[in-house]
Amino acid sequence: MKILVINSGSSSLKYQLLDMESESVMVSGLVERIGEEKGELTNKAFPGTDRQKVTELDQPIPDHNAAMRLAIDLICGGDDTICSLDEITAIGHRVVHGGEDFHKSTVIDADVINAIEANVPLAPLHNPANLTGIKVAVELFPGVPQVAVFDTAFHQTIPPHAYMYALPYELYEKDRVRRYGFHGTSHKFVAGEMAAILGKELSETNMVTVHLGNGGSITAVENGKSVDTTMGLTPLEGLVMGTRSGDVDPAIHTFLARNKGMTIDEIDAMLNKESGLKGLCGMNDMRDIHKAIEEGDERAKIALGVQTYRNRKYIAAYMGVLGRVDAIVFTAGIGENDDIVRSRSLEGLSLFGVKVDEKVNAQRAKKPLKISTDDSAVAVWVIPTNEELAIARETKNILQ
Amino acid sequence: MKILVINSGSSSLKYQLLDMESESVMVSGLVERIGEEKGELTNKAFPGTDRQKVTELDQPIPDHNAAMRLAIDLICGGDDTICSLDEITAIGHRVVHGGEDFHKSTVIDADVINAIEANVPLAPLHNPANLTGIKVAVELFPGVPQVAVFDTAFHQTIPPHAYMYALPYELYEKDRVRRYGFHGTSHKFVAGEMAAILGKELSETNMVTVHLGNGGSITAVENGKSVDTTMGLTPLEGLVMGTRSGDVDPAIHTFLARNKGMTIDEIDAMLNKESGLKGLCGMNDMRDIHKAIEEGDERAKIALGVQTYRNRKYIAAYMGVLGRVDAIVFTAGIGENDDIVRSRSLEGLSLFGVKVDEKVNAQRAKKPLKISTDDSAVAVWVIPTNEELAIARETKNILQ
Repeated sequence: MKILVINSGSSSLKYQLLDMESESVMVSGLVERIGEEKGELTNKAFPGTDRQKVTELDQPIPDHNAAMRLAIDLICGGDDTICSLDEITAIGHRVVHGGEDFHKSTVIDADVINAIEANVPLAPLHNPANLTGIKVAVELFPGVPQVAVFDTAFHQTIPPHAYMYALPYELYEKDRVRRYGFHGTSHKFVAGEMAAILGKELSETNMVTVHLGNGGSITAVENGKSVDTTMGLTPLEGLVMGTRSGDVDPAIHTFLARNKGMTIDEIDAMLNKESGLKGLCGMNDMRDIHKAIEEGDERAKIALGVQTYRNRKYIAAYMGVLGRVDAIVFTAGIGENDDIVRSRSLEGLSLFGVKVDEKVNAQRAKKPLKISTDDSAVAVWVIPTNEELAIARETKNILQ
Repeated sequence: MKILVINSGSSSLKYQLLDMESESVMVSGLVERIGEEKGELTNKAFPGTDRQKVTELDQPIPDHNAAMRLAIDLICGGDDTICSLDEITAIGHRVVHGGEDFHKSTVIDADVINAIEANVPLAPLHNPANLTGIKVAVELFPGVPQVAVFDTAFHQTIPPHAYMYALPYELYEKDRVRRYGFHGTSHKFVAGEMAAILGKELSETNMVTVHLGNGGSITAVENGKSVDTTMGLTPLEGLVMGTRSGDVDPAIHTFLARNKGMTIDEIDAMLNKESGLKGLCGMNDMRDIHKAIEEGDERAKIALGVQTYRNRKYIAAYMGVLGRVDAIVFTAGIGENDDIVRSRSLEGLSLFGVKVDEKVNAQRAKKPLKISTDDSAVAVWVIPTNEELAIARETKNILQ
């Protein structure tokens, strides 16, 4: 069984072809600058193996249809054919916002497309781009089942006391303003991996999953289900991210409008693109930040302090929410690779039985790594996330 | 030693005359609707005792000067003279925002007045009203020392990793955008009371103080000092309050502007006046909410759920911040009187050694009450706050 995974952005298209027997990647590719003067495509056959073959194209790529056709040619055409078109059993699409309509991954039909469209106000940048990818794939792969895998679906088990904002109730009733949460595919994936490693049923495992990438979110997982998460109506709420502020006083908008004459659009752009680690210290790559701290940069030190303190507060809060915690799991770019961020994010949690083995924590690993001591009451693990594999598994499960 | 405490609002003036030998209230009064067509004054001599005498006036009260003169006449004039003007040793003023200029209560002089004025952008409604009260008192009590007691001062020990928002650093440098916190006088007061009850040095006591009134905030107190608090740049951030939203996704403003055509001022008014408990269920009196829940009101149930869950997350977060916690203290209107809110706010914290004796918790008391079980690892107490007494004590301490 071969599954093609598509992640379609407004001017980009990421794809991966997976062999689901071995869960290995046959092809991965990225098309960028779609619709711009000069497009770019990078296709890797058998990536990371000794059979790896990289193809790069620099040429105008007018739209997503053209991008997908170029990708298909590289996968299924010419002398280097990796698989024939009819071997592709199914296609899994990443869709950012399923609103309250989708509690799980879903086979795409006209109703599903309409529902994704109806949720565009909740994700005005992402859902239209995701829909473009779906429409192109439906056109180019007629008859192949297509599945929508939503970033929000895993979090649809969050109860009202955690998803309701204390706003006029009508905003929820009429405009669906509530906490949705994102990165659901990743949180669900590492939660599943963690339960398997612990040898426990997922439905009996409580965890705090900490996804720290360029975006970041933390989820409280109770008996395998999401019961709270740091991102909210949008991916702006919660943790300190690369360029996103995360939590701020909601009166800051008024303060900036009155004292700096800023408009809502300017404030929105600032909170999403000029804040977070970048806002605090001018850098949003953790390696640069650690280097700057070593060189005595005070603002870099503050940035790391604010970021990891926020993580720590949420981890502690969610331990309180769960009452019993089997494991804390770190994942994604920073979560997998930054031992200092992990260590600082767990500071002070020894009251709750969390003990980190700093020697093991300092190791790098491409596979799951236990970083807590053997006498830690709560297991702490680093588990690499794999959103493409997660989408492919979801797609496979739905079709079976 | 007799101290007059003044809390001056934009159209109101609250005052209390305290005898500091016995720390008892000689007079308490409230003037409302100052500057409106019809003003109201209620003056209570020896309130709550069998000597209590209530005077009510309904007449136009053009300004704070007139209000203060009416109060002075009732305290120091006529047949019912309670004390002579020259017996008033000092006056303590509540001031909402001391910015980064005031780490403690301060004797008022021209520089202090200028500094309070300079902080008006941070509290545009409160600081001007507080200044009016100060100016009137300086005029009517020449030569009597006057002390400013700031809501923010206790929180000036909060470290940068907890007070910095992840916003462009220039907003902190140039515009002092940061977490300040409020209710400092109350948090400091109950922290002091708690340490005394525990028989510990305040400087060696770790606490989570939970002030739940019409406004609400929770503070992490480490070795007697505030190290984090839920309110931020303004009193809007943090907990679910009577009409204030507390935390929301900071992208909600953009969502409401784009989808509902709301302006920043409209959103600000909504978040401050139409949100919180009132927004969720139409009520902001806890007694009404509990009654409605008993009658099966679903929205009241959600409101209580959201409010207490938010409390619980912050209490757990601050326990993680402190690492070791000697006590959790509930205070203010709801904190002192609502056993259901207390109980629900502590749910799930048994992992952290918190055990509530629900039978004791259900009791009402006008004095400190321990509501945790004897085998609870963390003591939980209800301690009535007394902001006027706290301001009077601060005033006395500064002058000695």
